[in-house]
Amino acid sequence: MVEYVVPAPKRRRGRPRAGESDARERIMAAAIEEFGEAGYDGATMRAIASRAGVDPALVHHYFGTKADLFGEAIHAPLRPDLALPEILAGPRDDMGERIVRYLLETWEQPDVRRRGVVLLRAAIGNRLTTPLLAGFLSRELLSRIARALEVEDGELRASLVASQVAGILIARYVLRLPALAEASVDEIVARVGPTVQRYLYD
Amino acid sequence: MVEYVVPAPKRRRGRPRAGESDARERIMAAAIEEFGEAGYDGATMRAIASRAGVDPALVHHYFGTKADLFGEAIHAPLRPDLALPEILAGPRDDMGERIVRYLLETWEQPDVRRRGVVLLRAAIGNRLTTPLLAGFLSRELLSRIARALEVEDGELRASLVASQVAGILIARYVLRLPALAEASVDEIVARVGPTVQRYLYD
Repeated sequence: MVEYVVPAPKRRRGRPRAGESDARERIMAAAIEEFGEAGYDGATMRAIASRAGVDPALVHHYFGTKADLFGEAIHAPLRPDLALPEILAGPRDDMGERIVRYLLETWEQPDVRRRGVVLLRAAIGNRLTTPLLAGFLSRELLSRIARALEVEDGELRASLVASQVAGILIARYVLRLPALAEASVDEIVARVGPTVQRYLYD
Repeated sequence: MVEYVVPAPKRRRGRPRAGESDARERIMAAAIEEFGEAGYDGATMRAIASRAGVDPALVHHYFGTKADLFGEAIHAPLRPDLALPEILAGPRDDMGERIVRYLLETWEQPDVRRRGVVLLRAAIGNRLTTPLLAGFLSRELLSRIARALEVEDGELRASLVASQVAGILIARYVLRLPALAEASVDEIVARVGPTVQRYLYD
């Protein structure tokens, strides 16, 4: 059953109006399914529209190009714009543990994990999408953390944190290395939290 | 110019004989090019044979299936079977630094880096190849490190090391996060070595 939704005129991206959000969410969910099954190269805007039950024009209307849509999809599993200010506003002493715990607890949610794995795979697997992920990380995470640190080597410290955090997400949820996949969140926080703390402040 | 090489009978994989090694090396180089350009799904044994200038039968003869060939290609950039015993035989006090330095100095070689990036992309990008990389890491690296540690949680410690090391390789060479891509090997060894040391022994 294909449902066509008439595009609202002159609005691309930005916050959805009431009534739009359902179609946007269906398109985003369809995009993540399609990127996951077909990879970035194989995914088409037409197939995404078909999965979402909307006209392809509406996908372009809301999200622009395929690269734009992928770039927006990367935000979905992490939403650092929401969490990061709160994490950075907390006490320094356990900042490393809080960062690791927040990420793992978020990714333990099955829906977030599924999307996150799909997007990590697609972003790392393809030389066209890797810069989209790198740009997202730099813009939304690393520069914010670096600014909050207020030290000269803040960008390097933030990038080291990103390397460890990305490594844990990949090892536990993508590669599923048995010892890490089976460890509890508390266990990983206890081992990896001090690493992140040291990269930030030592 | 296509050169055909007659397959030697009844020999699949294993050490090459004199005269075989050139064709094997050409096939492996061709496979890495093809996986890099077409991805794992898009790569065909026929295209790999064509790049190498050999008959497709020879590719199957030496390497088996496409998955077998990919699994063998993963070994090429790291060769932990060669380096690991030497690293593990050294003193404990700077084991973490030695592991990080060895990996970075290896990947700083342009040819190793290019192959490594191609294979990391292909392995993480595809759900069929991820288990091949995970299996390789578990078998060739993690279990060896875990055995050498002689502690109950050796497998978890080794997996944490793998998460940080993989994270650095991805952040520096695949994502190319600017601060990490521009840092010197010495700088990264100084920051990341103590992390690996702590995961191994603290």
